[in-house]
Amino acid sequence: MERFSNISMAVVRRLPKYHRYLGDLLNNDIRRVSSQELSRITGFTASQIRQDLNCFGGFGQQGYGYNVDELYKEIGKILGLDKTYKTVIIGAGNVGRAIANYTFFDESGFKLHGMFDNSPKKIGDNIKNITVMPIDELESFIKENEIEIGILCTPKEGTQKIAERLVECGIKGIWNFAPVDLKLDSNVIIENVHLSESLFTISYLLKEQDETKKKKK
Amino acid sequence: MERFSNISMAVVRRLPKYHRYLGDLLNNDIRRVSSQELSRITGFTASQIRQDLNCFGGFGQQGYGYNVDELYKEIGKILGLDKTYKTVIIGAGNVGRAIANYTFFDESGFKLHGMFDNSPKKIGDNIKNITVMPIDELESFIKENEIEIGILCTPKEGTQKIAERLVECGIKGIWNFAPVDLKLDSNVIIENVHLSESLFTISYLLKEQDETKKKKK
Repeated sequence: MERFSNISMAVVRRLPKYHRYLGDLLNNDIRRVSSQELSRITGFTASQIRQDLNCFGGFGQQGYGYNVDELYKEIGKILGLDKTYKTVIIGAGNVGRAIANYTFFDESGFKLHGMFDNSPKKIGDNIKNITVMPIDELESFIKENEIEIGILCTPKEGTQKIAERLVECGIKGIWNFAPVDLKLDSNVIIENVHLSESLFTISYLLKEQDETKKKKK
Repeated sequence: MERFSNISMAVVRRLPKYHRYLGDLLNNDIRRVSSQELSRITGFTASQIRQDLNCFGGFGQQGYGYNVDELYKEIGKILGLDKTYKTVIIGAGNVGRAIANYTFFDESGFKLHGMFDNSPKKIGDNIKNITVMPIDELESFIKENEIEIGILCTPKEGTQKIAERLVECGIKGIWNFAPVDLKLDSNVIIENVHLSESLFTISYLLKEQDETKKKKK
């Protein structure tokens, strides 16, 4: 497969959307799509779409559009979805359990190998056929099983420390659900899902909307 | 309170981070902070910080910096965190249950009033003292209880339809966890948490990193 480095993160973040919409088209047995049609569905402009997809080589043909099946598979490959990834979840609370049970996670090649917690109440619990292990066993488990991704579902306090331990064991990526900006001296990949920030954005916008309505009255 | 419309979404999205860091400072009994110090903690430049905070009026004093307590409270007000919001969750699967049990949600003024599902297996379940109701009761419940926010934890299929029903009942905001871009003819606030896209970004970056390493060898 070709290498496509120096692709901007903005493009990378649009790719999953293309992949999702192309999957929908395939499910509806649509085999061919124009950039105009993709624009209507995705909300991106047709020229944006052509430009994005050109970053990865020429998938479209003028006058024909894109072959949906081919484009879907290619974007899947570009996204690395043809591979599998070994993961562990740290923190067996509600968020950790939800991720463990998230079918999409499994379907996308992310295989859960272990779960860890420091609470005696949770250690030993069985979640999706995985027994929650004590956090002390984190390092040995990651090394023995060549785990690539650590998923942090830990409370705010202690998350930075756990992340440092993951880096020490040579983890490659961290999916972080804790409301903390990790500071790590390493080129480990960090992807944050900051639910609280998302929630605060709603609260801000609701407040703004209410005040605008009051003003109009 | 003053009104601050026309604030760019980029600034709005940084505010929760300021709020979080200022809360940490307060917890550590730090009462005063300079924009340089805030810059070191947040990773934003000092001039960015001054510019952001100036959007909302002058909080800082030259030579003194910012009063942490005052700034924390003001940003909280700007974010609407001094209010409470009535919410319902639609979809009592793993994600819905995780949100229901998410303590931060409750602490931030988001009060869960009801949960809905269409599966007879889930209807009647008790989650955080809330009994899961059949989806048919959605409209009447929202109207009677003046619910403001609907949280969509539904499978992809059917999500758009549920969102339309929420809009029909006059809901003000939607927090959407389904992998769908909602298309709604209304100025309802939509905030998406697309976990699959976040996951695909990790997978892309891991693949890129692996290939870069191979190339170097």
